Amino acid sequence: MMEIAAKPLTIAIDAMGGDYAPQMVVEGVSRVTKRMKNVRFLLFGRSDEIAPLVDRLRRLNPRVELREATDVIAGTERPSMALRNGRNSSMRLAIDAVAAGAADGVVSAGNTGALMAMAKFVFKTLPGVDRPAIASVFPSIRGRTVLLDLGANVCCGADNLVQFAVMGEVFARNVLGLKNPSVGILNVGEEDFKGNEAVKKAAAILQQSSLAIRFHGFVEGDDIALGTVDVIVTDGFTGNIALKTAEGTARLYTHLLKSALVSSPFARLGALLAGPALRAMRARVDPRVYDGAMFLGLNGVCVKSHGGTDSLGFANAIRTAVQLIADGVNEGIKHDFAYVSSESGTDPKLAAG
Amino acid sequence: MMEIAAKPLTIAIDAMGGDYAPQMVVEGVSRVTKRMKNVRFLLFGRSDEIAPLVDRLRRLNPRVELREATDVIAGTERPSMALRNGRNSSMRLAIDAVAAGAADGVVSAGNTGALMAMAKFVFKTLPGVDRPAIASVFPSIRGRTVLLDLGANVCCGADNLVQFAVMGEVFARNVLGLKNPSVGILNVGEEDFKGNEAVKKAAAILQQSSLAIRFHGFVEGDDIALGTVDVIVTDGFTGNIALKTAEGTARLYTHLLKSALVSSPFARLGALLAGPALRAMRARVDPRVYDGAMFLGLNGVCVKSHGGTDSLGFANAIRTAVQLIADGVNEGIKHDFAYVSSESGTDPKLAAG
Repeated sequence: MMEIAAKPLTIAIDAMGGDYAPQMVVEGVSRVTKRMKNVRFLLFGRSDEIAPLVDRLRRLNPRVELREATDVIAGTERPSMALRNGRNSSMRLAIDAVAAGAADGVVSAGNTGALMAMAKFVFKTLPGVDRPAIASVFPSIRGRTVLLDLGANVCCGADNLVQFAVMGEVFARNVLGLKNPSVGILNVGEEDFKGNEAVKKAAAILQQSSLAIRFHGFVEGDDIALGTVDVIVTDGFTGNIALKTAEGTARLYTHLLKSALVSSPFARLGALLAGPALRAMRARVDPRVYDGAMFLGLNGVCVKSHGGTDSLGFANAIRTAVQLIADGVNEGIKHDFAYVSSESGTDPKLAAG
Repeated sequence: MMEIAAKPLTIAIDAMGGDYAPQMVVEGVSRVTKRMKNVRFLLFGRSDEIAPLVDRLRRLNPRVELREATDVIAGTERPSMALRNGRNSSMRLAIDAVAAGAADGVVSAGNTGALMAMAKFVFKTLPGVDRPAIASVFPSIRGRTVLLDLGANVCCGADNLVQFAVMGEVFARNVLGLKNPSVGILNVGEEDFKGNEAVKKAAAILQQSSLAIRFHGFVEGDDIALGTVDVIVTDGFTGNIALKTAEGTARLYTHLLKSALVSSPFARLGALLAGPALRAMRARVDPRVYDGAMFLGLNGVCVKSHGGTDSLGFANAIRTAVQLIADGVNEGIKHDFAYVSSESGTDPKLAAG
């Protein structure tokens, strides 16, 4: 991951979003400023809460600018209500700053549904994209796997899945740095007669398509962690449940491992000796390392940090945003969707009909 | 788990199903005969392959009976083709034996779709049940969680989900031995405005229902491993992907832990000292311990063992079948569905419209 943005960038930050905001947000920003010299921040939120936190971290002062926002979107707020009543919220004003050209991208650890609704309303979708998707990176045995959609769309047709494949492939090239990433569709089996109509139709379109996508075919849930392909496409209902199931299983293992390693004096001594190796293992699957879910398909960079994250996770979400902006992931999506329309004579939406 | 069936039982075994059949099947049967004195077996498959294996394990001879079946259903066979052409297969003849009264239940590690299609065709569904579901038990931080459907139905309406809730609750009472298990519906969030139409409608029905079900509401993917509720209901598409995602994550963790513990001389020594604790931990999440997915809602006991399982897993699948038969889980489902019809005046199917 790059640590110095090539040109000066400004990131708008929802300083009030997340379980431990605004403190973890300010500390996350501070972590990033240490290494990325070319990035400055607009912090949206309640100045009386944020200013003392910024003042404590002196190096922050020249790099951040506070912008007053009195309202905060609650974690349980319905997206439609947030959109209607949240015009003066820290989340909305941070998004507006990007639309106004005052910032290059926005990061929030707040309400996912509200953030998506606002970002979609303000940024609009990129040309040819029907619906944005949430994409994130998962650890795998082979390396890393991109999964999308993680919850933006509970119902998806074949056309949406095909568009997610195009966007996910661009994301993998930029974020994972892969030249020719492989793409699979999540299903209940690898055989082509399995699954619902949407996945079967999407697979048929991708198989016949002239798009420069290395389409692998169907993959199953365990392929996320096995790393069978680089990008896995699914609807937002299944994707969200796969994401949370993986998180839950990881927590179960961490819980059991910790319990095991204090269960006897021998185990404690063993844990001490194996400590560095176990810490290296934990770092490999630390969810904070993978923090930063990208809203793909919007005409603006918006990254969602995990609601329960700490400053380390939030800093990684910011780095994800910086990387996406610096590498021009939205330019890449625009380019690929233009190619889809011009080269094949149909856009994926029409082809999926 | 009970180790002695109260009354003599006969289990029909598909001896040819599974990646390592028939050897792992015969060895699995042998494991069970050691402890369960009151169970005998009908082994369906190619006698020339099975007989030598049985002869090697002498104690098996008085407990097993071989039944010739020349055909074997391939793992990649379409369910519809298996149903049409598999009449002389080991899988089908084992199912037929139960229908004919020669056995009390059937266990197979073969093709899941084919097994479900055949079992449904031969056994039919229980009164009031529209569609059978595949249920299995997952390890959780709190203990164990039942999840269904794991893949029998890729598309489910609200009525199906409600019926799965009723069946899953009976299963949890019998298999987990719980008096009043709690039931949740898998969704992308806990708020009632989230999710697709099917889960919203199913939740509304269960909330208003006079059924004696302790309905918790919506749960998320991480609640499977956290053990927030005892039974989690979902459609077969999402359930299958959640199951496989959990399996994949578990394999990733096991892989990383093993790698970590041989990564340095200190780590190796630590692993040696913590060995017993780590083995106890592994046993707690060993998928073989949880082997045995039940086909719920059929008028016959059919248990699916994991295709890649070994004799230990297959033995546990047999134990699951014995337990379900001995505890009369199908009688319980029949009773509850009769109650649904008579007490509330509507059965879940009608109520879900």
